[in-house]
Amino acid sequence: MAGNTFGQVFRVTTWGESHGTAIGATIDGCPAGIPITAEDIQVDLDRRRPGKGGATSPRKEPDKVEILSGIFNDFTTGTPITLVIYNKDAHSKSYTDLENIFRPGHGDFSYFCKYGIRDHRGGGRASARETAARVAAGAVARKFLQFSGIKVFAYTLALGNIMAEQFSMEALDENRLCCPDNKAAEKMEKLIKEVRKEGDTLGGIVEIMATGCPAGLGEPVFNKLDADLAGALISIGAVKGVEIGSGFAAATARGSENNDSLTPDGFASNNAGGILAGISNGDPIVARVAVKPIPSINKPQQTVNMDNEITEIRIGGRHDIAAIPRINPVCEAMVCLTLADHLMRQQAEELFQDDGFED
Amino acid sequence: MAGNTFGQVFRVTTWGESHGTAIGATIDGCPAGIPITAEDIQVDLDRRRPGKGGATSPRKEPDKVEILSGIFNDFTTGTPITLVIYNKDAHSKSYTDLENIFRPGHGDFSYFCKYGIRDHRGGGRASARETAARVAAGAVARKFLQFSGIKVFAYTLALGNIMAEQFSMEALDENRLCCPDNKAAEKMEKLIKEVRKEGDTLGGIVEIMATGCPAGLGEPVFNKLDADLAGALISIGAVKGVEIGSGFAAATARGSENNDSLTPDGFASNNAGGILAGISNGDPIVARVAVKPIPSINKPQQTVNMDNEITEIRIGGRHDIAAIPRINPVCEAMVCLTLADHLMRQQAEELFQDDGFED
Amino acid sequence: MAGNTFGQVFRVTTWGESHGTAIGATIDGCPAGIPITAEDIQVDLDRRRPGKGGATSPRKEPDKVEILSGIFNDFTTGTPITLVIYNKDAHSKSYTDLENIFRPGHGDFSYFCKYGIRDHRGGGRASARETAARVAAGAVARKFLQFSGIKVFAYTLALGNIMAEQFSMEALDENRLCCPDNKAAEKMEKLIKEVRKEGDTLGGIVEIMATGCPAGLGEPVFNKLDADLAGALISIGAVKGVEIGSGFAAATARGSENNDSLTPDGFASNNAGGILAGISNGDPIVARVAVKPIPSINKPQQTVNMDNEITEIRIGGRHDIAAIPRINPVCEAMVCLTLADHLMRQQAEELFQDDGFED
Amino acid sequence: MAGNTFGQVFRVTTWGESHGTAIGATIDGCPAGIPITAEDIQVDLDRRRPGKGGATSPRKEPDKVEILSGIFNDFTTGTPITLVIYNKDAHSKSYTDLENIFRPGHGDFSYFCKYGIRDHRGGGRASARETAARVAAGAVARKFLQFSGIKVFAYTLALGNIMAEQFSMEALDENRLCCPDNKAAEKMEKLIKEVRKEGDTLGGIVEIMATGCPAGLGEPVFNKLDADLAGALISIGAVKGVEIGSGFAAATARGSENNDSLTPDGFASNNAGGILAGISNGDPIVARVAVKPIPSINKPQQTVNMDNEITEIRIGGRHDIAAIPRINPVCEAMVCLTLADHLMRQQAEELFQDDGFED
Repeated sequence: MAGNTFGQVFRVTTWGESHGTAIGATIDGCPAGIPITAEDIQVDLDRRRPGKGGATSPRKEPDKVEILSGIFNDFTTGTPITLVIYNKDAHSKSYTDLENIFRPGHGDFSYFCKYGIRDHRGGGRASARETAARVAAGAVARKFLQFSGIKVFAYTLALGNIMAEQFSMEALDENRLCCPDNKAAEKMEKLIKEVRKEGDTLGGIVEIMATGCPAGLGEPVFNKLDADLAGALISIGAVKGVEIGSGFAAATARGSENNDSLTPDGFASNNAGGILAGISNGDPIVARVAVKPIPSINKPQQTVNMDNEITEIRIGGRHDIAAIPRINPVCEAMVCLTLADHLMRQQAEELFQDDGFED
Repeated sequence: MAGNTFGQVFRVTTWGESHGTAIGATIDGCPAGIPITAEDIQVDLDRRRPGKGGATSPRKEPDKVEILSGIFNDFTTGTPITLVIYNKDAHSKSYTDLENIFRPGHGDFSYFCKYGIRDHRGGGRASARETAARVAAGAVARKFLQFSGIKVFAYTLALGNIMAEQFSMEALDENRLCCPDNKAAEKMEKLIKEVRKEGDTLGGIVEIMATGCPAGLGEPVFNKLDADLAGALISIGAVKGVEIGSGFAAATARGSENNDSLTPDGFASNNAGGILAGISNGDPIVARVAVKPIPSINKPQQTVNMDNEITEIRIGGRHDIAAIPRINPVCEAMVCLTLADHLMRQQAEELFQDDGFED
Repeated sequence: MAGNTFGQVFRVTTWGESHGTAIGATIDGCPAGIPITAEDIQVDLDRRRPGKGGATSPRKEPDKVEILSGIFNDFTTGTPITLVIYNKDAHSKSYTDLENIFRPGHGDFSYFCKYGIRDHRGGGRASARETAARVAAGAVARKFLQFSGIKVFAYTLALGNIMAEQFSMEALDENRLCCPDNKAAEKMEKLIKEVRKEGDTLGGIVEIMATGCPAGLGEPVFNKLDADLAGALISIGAVKGVEIGSGFAAATARGSENNDSLTPDGFASNNAGGILAGISNGDPIVARVAVKPIPSINKPQQTVNMDNEITEIRIGGRHDIAAIPRINPVCEAMVCLTLADHLMRQQAEELFQDDGFED
Repeated sequence: MAGNTFGQVFRVTTWGESHGTAIGATIDGCPAGIPITAEDIQVDLDRRRPGKGGATSPRKEPDKVEILSGIFNDFTTGTPITLVIYNKDAHSKSYTDLENIFRPGHGDFSYFCKYGIRDHRGGGRASARETAARVAAGAVARKFLQFSGIKVFAYTLALGNIMAEQFSMEALDENRLCCPDNKAAEKMEKLIKEVRKEGDTLGGIVEIMATGCPAGLGEPVFNKLDADLAGALISIGAVKGVEIGSGFAAATARGSENNDSLTPDGFASNNAGGILAGISNGDPIVARVAVKPIPSINKPQQTVNMDNEITEIRIGGRHDIAAIPRINPVCEAMVCLTLADHLMRQQAEELFQDDGFED
């Protein structure tokens, strides 16, 4: 049973290969009556585009989204929304020399084990290009969340070993790395240059915050809000770890330190990251993800070919140095999709008593 | 849309409140023909029982599992398996003084926001007691996995700030904390005693490993094996973070360090934690979870009551100092359930060509 | 992927074998705050009990339902509701001579083909006894529907070749066959006696009506309300056909006859059976099902055993002459479950605009 | 929770409005390695195209399918398959005079009640045009079923009151109505002419048969094969009734007549329609559907407008006289999709014992 659909009520199916005809997303379950245009979606897509940020590849995809269904006169109709992005700048040829080689750190080997088929054209579904479809769908979810006053944004907490040390909302727009600390951003830019020269790549940490989320979202016991957020975020290719609120720091804290006291004005702290027992508590939701370094490095690597013979590989192509900051809107999209789904799930369960009720 | 069901093909629904009549699990989708008895299930339940481990509560639940359906003559029949554990030692009364108070770090507040109902009896579904049902269901999954030679085990990597520094399989049975390092375990026992005296509680880190897992499990792009494992593990109440393979360490590594080279004899390292692009690669699967300290502390805490008035609380009752090591078999159960589900999902997709095929 | 769960949002899993320890139902997704007691559920169960109606078996099951979870102080809590009915009067022994024989018209053969296991004890899950669990769950759905003023009832339209020719609501309680025509009911009773003497069995037609259902329920295009009702009703063992509104009569009607005109006071006729394009239109919902004769007949029949050798069988045991009228509350239950699910699905999709919305 | 997805393992989502940019289908869950081309899909689409059959509308849609993803070098890759058909001949303008009127027998009224939005352009998702996407997806399922030797075909059993009285496979290709009785087909053609002159429309009955289906498909108790087939078939707009095997005739038969005896060479009869207790028994699967007359008639009809005022309507536009025979390949598609899904579901559950198993 395949897994290209996300969500239970607000459901998105992404489809399309990195070097196929097109990629896209089909949303089933978006309520009718939400105002949205292709331009609204394009805004988020442009933030994720190749060439955006200092650490990115020179592949030139306009990533122009087209709406094929579900939106009429700039409002959603309640029917499935299909968004398509045709692939324009797909250089499949630059991958033909990889046809028989398993790239280290890539899905080539495991995809082949699973499907028995080698679609070497740029990684197929395993390519980060698939995430453009997530961002497009996430933009629709974001519009829906606005009705409830929910805002979602992600920022770069660390690139390699450089950490943001202060938080300024303005900074997010002032530096290319979407880092809340302009000074740290400068150091990150410098690091990127060095690492690019070395032919190597970088990982980092992204933090995602959702504000305005009402208390009560999340479905015990398996679809707790944190469980679904964690699954959503780790489903992004480069993410290898996730934490909610105090996260791994909770492992070394005492209960008396980690508990958030309740006061008449709300919680005194937010170690819970806005989620208690899997249900939102009204505080901002806070998650962090560990992003691994891009596996395509411009250095010789040992590997094997499809005959299991040792060979060496040095990956050309047009690759990013770090998934950050292009991955940031992808993280936002996954959080938007998760919250939209849970908002609708919660709404389904509310009990509106009919006036004429009699027992 | 509620969330008490886990899995897509091997599906488990847990039900029951901590201080209600019974808790249980209903499994729909377990193949016919698997040999299993109540005793097989009891083995895992006994490892999770109150009183097991040095950090645990004195609540005395025999946690005796009964099979109500789906197993005939000690074999599964392919029909739904219902397992029930009747609650025996439920002291609801000891909770009546909590009826109007929201305990810090507990789900009281968020459950009330969600359901508009206060079931104060020991946390209801939010109680760790719910995880006994997971363990029972996980024991069935474990039997199924044995057919494919898959083994799953969890161990204590850290308790508070004490880390295991060496790995011995034997040690896991030699100390009460299920720690692979007997010396570290000694220090942990000491720490528990101190913290108990202080009336405080501890968190820690559990590592889970699955060996013998074939390559090819996991469903891109949203039900990647790591995404589903992360969601499964964070759905355990006390877990606030999860990482796969190198996890958060990947954030500071270079691509050249983090990539696992392929050799004719397999991968040269396992930073991927056995999962590449969301699909198992044949290497052992490795995940780690951050366990927060138990929120019920024997110290006065500030909080509010249901009238939003400040009050103080000091939690008596019979509570553990740490969720570790009782949480370890729960982690195993969630991994067993995830792998059983993905094994069946993968099997559904295989293409067996009929001899008589003609086009 | 097994199929013992019904519904998407209001979800019921039934479990248990006819001659196992117990049968039951687990409901996940019932909203919190619905008043319900075991007695409420028992009312519906009693209408389906063996011994009820003139055409029924003498198996004496008290069918006493117990609530294991999800209901606290006589209100639903929003957590999973588990209902259990322990089997008391299960004479497995009377089935041992069937151990190696496939009964005609029964699921013995197809179950064996599917599961490779022979659970000969009275049909296992294929027994009509499984439907008691549906009725128990349906009683919970019925209580939920009352909040929206929806009522569901079923009645006997035909038994064998005897048709009801008039409709009186009072009659439904006045004759044992739950037929809206007392005179027809008399003829039916007579027919049952004759057929019982012959050692044979009878089929018939049941009509189900739901009143008070708001317009707008049903999910195009695959989960249309009529599609889900049809699937729900045919999932009852003895049902071999279903029609909505004019049903098969529509096949010979002209468009000008079959269209229901709209007037300022509603539809002028109800050939649509209350469902247009798969969505309820506010009129009463009307469905009819064809019920096949009970396959267990007290006459010699040709069949084969598990060695594929010809043999003869004459089924003793305690069997009904007709599934009607015990099947009627089962039909009601399936319609209640379907409507409850769609009511919640529709509610999930409604767009409540937040005051503070800004774009 | 919207309902545009069909199937659990072989899953299809259709999308697109009759007069929007495009319609399409996204299949998630099709196994890798199935040979298929756009031409294979086009064959089925051409059988459903406007202008095909004697009873059809003159709308001229080439209905040319394009493959956007999931197929590489003429084989499925295991990733989602998206098929798109751009709308070319959509005369939205011819519908503008319907903007404020609810057409009798159409979904206009119920869609408006549900979504609060009026998409008057030719019925939007409620249009029969949506079924082109089903046929495209069904063609992929059909290719998959060929691996197991399963064949699915549908034919016209009745048009209005004219019944086929004999069965000839050759006839299906010899007359335009896809009727197995050429003489009956002639009468049907004549009837169509008469009814067209009257400005009226016709219904009828379609029978669908699946041969080569292995015993063991179907998932008790709610996803019985007949339940899923019934739901699938009634989800086609014009279908108002469905029966399996003897269907409604079973209601008047005795048990001794309706039971199919088992013999060493198989069942002696097929009243079960190939399905026993919801599981296929190896015999041909037989279903029949009642198709209502097309609601768009060329006669004046009473109705109301959106201000609930009485008005008269006479529908011009380009409409069919009967859904038959264009609906026949749609019925086939729904049966193909259902069987493909169940084939994979059954495969998921099989227990392959590993050599190295030890308990």
